[in-house]
Amino acid sequence: MLNFLLAAALAQAVAAPPAAAALPSDPLPADWVAVPDDELLVFTLANGHSFTVRLASRYAPVHVANIRKLAAAQWWDAGTSVYRLQDNYVAQWGDATEKKPLAAGVVETPPAEYSHAGPTTVARLAQRDPYSEWAGYSRDGWPLAGNGATEWLPHCYGMVGVARDLAPSTGSGAELYTVIGHSPRALDRNIAVVGRVIDGIEWLSSLPRGTGDLGFYTTAGERSPIVSARLASALPAAARPHFEYRRADNPRFIAWIASRENRSGPFFTVPAGGADICAALPPVRKAP
Amino acid sequence: MLNFLLAAALAQAVAAPPAAAALPSDPLPADWVAVPDDELLVFTLANGHSFTVRLASRYAPVHVANIRKLAAAQWWDAGTSVYRLQDNYVAQWGDATEKKPLAAGVVETPPAEYSHAGPTTVARLAQRDPYSEWAGYSRDGWPLAGNGATEWLPHCYGMVGVARDLAPSTGSGAELYTVIGHSPRALDRNIAVVGRVIDGIEWLSSLPRGTGDLGFYTTAGERSPIVSARLASALPAAARPHFEYRRADNPRFIAWIASRENRSGPFFTVPAGGADICAALPPVRKAP
Repeated sequence: MLNFLLAAALAQAVAAPPAAAALPSDPLPADWVAVPDDELLVFTLANGHSFTVRLASRYAPVHVANIRKLAAAQWWDAGTSVYRLQDNYVAQWGDATEKKPLAAGVVETPPAEYSHAGPTTVARLAQRDPYSEWAGYSRDGWPLAGNGATEWLPHCYGMVGVARDLAPSTGSGAELYTVIGHSPRALDRNIAVVGRVIDGIEWLSSLPRGTGDLGFYTTAGERSPIVSARLASALPAAARPHFEYRRADNPRFIAWIASRENRSGPFFTVPAGGADICAALPPVRKAP
Repeated sequence: MLNFLLAAALAQAVAAPPAAAALPSDPLPADWVAVPDDELLVFTLANGHSFTVRLASRYAPVHVANIRKLAAAQWWDAGTSVYRLQDNYVAQWGDATEKKPLAAGVVETPPAEYSHAGPTTVARLAQRDPYSEWAGYSRDGWPLAGNGATEWLPHCYGMVGVARDLAPSTGSGAELYTVIGHSPRALDRNIAVVGRVIDGIEWLSSLPRGTGDLGFYTTAGERSPIVSARLASALPAAARPHFEYRRADNPRFIAWIASRENRSGPFFTVPAGGADICAALPPVRKAP
């Protein structure tokens, strides 16, 4: 009973309220909008599991253009793997040897798309956090943090960044990582964030941790080979995955934010009075 | 090369500076102090791996007394398991059936040790976060958050809490969980936090995610059986693990905090200007 009730109470912490409840924070059916096919990149591992990245083409256009070219060239389909798992930090994948030539047309030294002119938020959290003056939401499902009119994609759990060399290198986009622990916001504005794992992150976060320095696997046999990476738009229509983001430009979303900032119900006796953006990531779901 | 340099740069984000570097944030040898044997609780899984919890006896005395009694009675040695793995949230363990009688002397309804009178901090972070007016450090290696003179142990990655029923239940301490994702600070002041996993959390965080609601395993066969839980003080001297916390009551620690708030070095071009307590957890290490 304890587990069940705890589970039921904690459900409030991880999922939208049930559709049956007529809460001010409940979305309307029209609040769910399809993620465009060319923003969905599906990586499939040799073990048969896959994970899907939504690409942030608006915020990191040159890096995302690179990633699309690499996917079109089927660059990740041979010789790549998940080669680094550092606990409470990142899973990283690509070509562990870094010897594989990039695909034609890939910009090897993209500009530092670490932040951009904004704001593009349509809703914001009530309180600041130590990493930015404000944090909030784009209309279409992206978390954003900012100082004044400059904004950026924050390093939250599941966000995808581009591994890079020392500054001013930016990385091409061939080597990617996602956050699998407490959100390392100190990386904000220091690395290009290009997307978010919106499905299947458990196939990365539950991989064995690497025993080498910083979680790199010490032998090739420990790596998880990648067998393909495909944009949904490159798949036959019948094979395309479908995901939806929740629009943020409406009073229901504002009520949802408030519900995250002050949890209610029989489990919570002390509401926090605030939330950080990584604890209130915009809802995304598989299309029903 | 890219990976290596990224790795080297990110090392600053996860480890203390190398001992060779004479930085103001470098600890003196005497800054490392042994964790008392009766604060170390070692759980061993049937797969041979183990993880160690440091118990916060000062901040949750009744719950920790319960946990010590359960360990002394070898309560976890039979019929218990890690039975819940919810991605980006918690790993939970104990008696999945909740039928097993508790050990003699265990207080079934402890007081709500969710916060306490303070402050007991000797150092603080520069900026507040959305969850508390301030956050900082006890002298002896505990992270703390607080409003005014009331303080509590925050729900950071690796912190251990007591699963409970709906309020005003508090849970006995037989069913425990640890955070394996972005720190769910909304739980602060709503659950008793009784410790921190200071070693071996990767054997929890890399377990397969449960496919039932909220990450509960749907079959008994998916659970990871626990074969023993022992206080270090109950082990033969030669078999005891030894860990050390870094004292926080000195200028070197203050400099360490500053180094976490504003990362430097050739990798970081934009310092954050702040850190949240869960991104700057007090250093703990195995005794050299």
